Amino acid sequence: MVRLDHVAAKLEGLEETIIHRLIDRAQFARNPSIYEPGQSGFRGEPERSLLEIRLVEQERMDAEFGRFQVPEERPFSPGLPPPRREVSLKPAILKLEDFNAVNLTAQILASYIPFVERFCPPGTDGQFGSSVEHDVYALQAISRRIHFGAMYVAEVKYRANTPAYRLLIESGDRRGLLAQLTRPEVEERIMQRVSTKVHYIQAHVNREVRKLIDDQVVLEFYRDTIIPLTKEGEVRYLMHRPA
Amino acid sequence: MVRLDHVAAKLEGLEETIIHRLIDRAQFARNPSIYEPGQSGFRGEPERSLLEIRLVEQERMDAEFGRFQVPEERPFSPGLPPPRREVSLKPAILKLEDFNAVNLTAQILASYIPFVERFCPPGTDGQFGSSVEHDVYALQAISRRIHFGAMYVAEVKYRANTPAYRLLIESGDRRGLLAQLTRPEVEERIMQRVSTKVHYIQAHVNREVRKLIDDQVVLEFYRDTIIPLTKEGEVRYLMHRPA
Repeated sequence: MVRLDHVAAKLEGLEETIIHRLIDRAQFARNPSIYEPGQSGFRGEPERSLLEIRLVEQERMDAEFGRFQVPEERPFSPGLPPPRREVSLKPAILKLEDFNAVNLTAQILASYIPFVERFCPPGTDGQFGSSVEHDVYALQAISRRIHFGAMYVAEVKYRANTPAYRLLIESGDRRGLLAQLTRPEVEERIMQRVSTKVHYIQAHVNREVRKLIDDQVVLEFYRDTIIPLTKEGEVRYLMHRPA
Repeated sequence: MVRLDHVAAKLEGLEETIIHRLIDRAQFARNPSIYEPGQSGFRGEPERSLLEIRLVEQERMDAEFGRFQVPEERPFSPGLPPPRREVSLKPAILKLEDFNAVNLTAQILASYIPFVERFCPPGTDGQFGSSVEHDVYALQAISRRIHFGAMYVAEVKYRANTPAYRLLIESGDRRGLLAQLTRPEVEERIMQRVSTKVHYIQAHVNREVRKLIDDQVVLEFYRDTIIPLTKEGEVRYLMHRPA
């Protein structure tokens, strides 16, 4: 049994982790070349960007540790190795054969890179390795939040109102599903809460030694990326959920 | 040319990163088995703990990205691969042939593991992979702060008062060096500032969904580990500094 307030509490608890990681990334400049293909400086890497290489290497390691056995941990990279350890999973609540039916990492990455422009200081400081390291940590925290929300919120709402959802699913009505799932007042509350957290976490920072991020910019990233992709994930989850 | 106030500002800016990573680690239980040899659950790993395996794998990746070309990034693991990319370093300020003469990672690890007992919730929640992941991020942030402080503070103080330091170095007077380097009022100010930051960063957290860490516990980790190891590193740096 899983309850919506438990899922909401878990999502709320992930907000600080996302904010911490964005703030830590913002201590380095945008360093745009790290996102450009062929500019990684890696020997024998004419194609990929430094971020792409870092993301694959991180995920290769994480895969061996069993990260992607967890439903809400969806990989950005294809072709990862199998886990080298047994991961003890909680009893399955979700009903999905392949969790990658809800994999939104391509969309997350495509939204995140322009977002860096908005919360990091402009220009290049040469700290390329640290910048991609923190990009990967931020991407993983954002991805966990979106996929956790997508899968668990959808499952809980489906269980609470199965006949209505079943009808929309069977008729392939994605727009109807989205309307059924949407609660504007909840979204508004999340955005305000996140923005308040960004403010309070940084309220007493020494601006001479730490870069700050703008609470409005994070609010807009929730509004334009995190919340819409979570809902897109909910729709995908439901479209693949067996009756 | 490097100034003590610049070094101090950099050290102050690293405090939030350390605090963020401790808070993120504290969202998971202590999970003591992750520190026990042979309990990793990895196939073909009868000896190492899960943390040891994670640390080596992280550092192997980081080494290929050039992390350990940077003086203050000292590895916990021996035998890492060479970098696969060119790292552009700032003009060298430090005068040391081998930065590993100041490598205090063994001491950092030995102090950190008992510290987990003090800032993470007791018991086991089964989130072993996430726990070691966050342990590694916390360890790297702590290590960067200690090694950066050790090397740059020592070099700046040496330049400001070379004859006095040279005398102590030539006579092998480690105790005299430690006395010469110690400023109790600065240490007190750092500890109070860190404790205040831990308080403010968490001041508006919803305690029902997030675990908190105790500002006094972090203050004591600075007092008992970070500050003494930084000073030990300063002494080591000076003992190896050529005239």
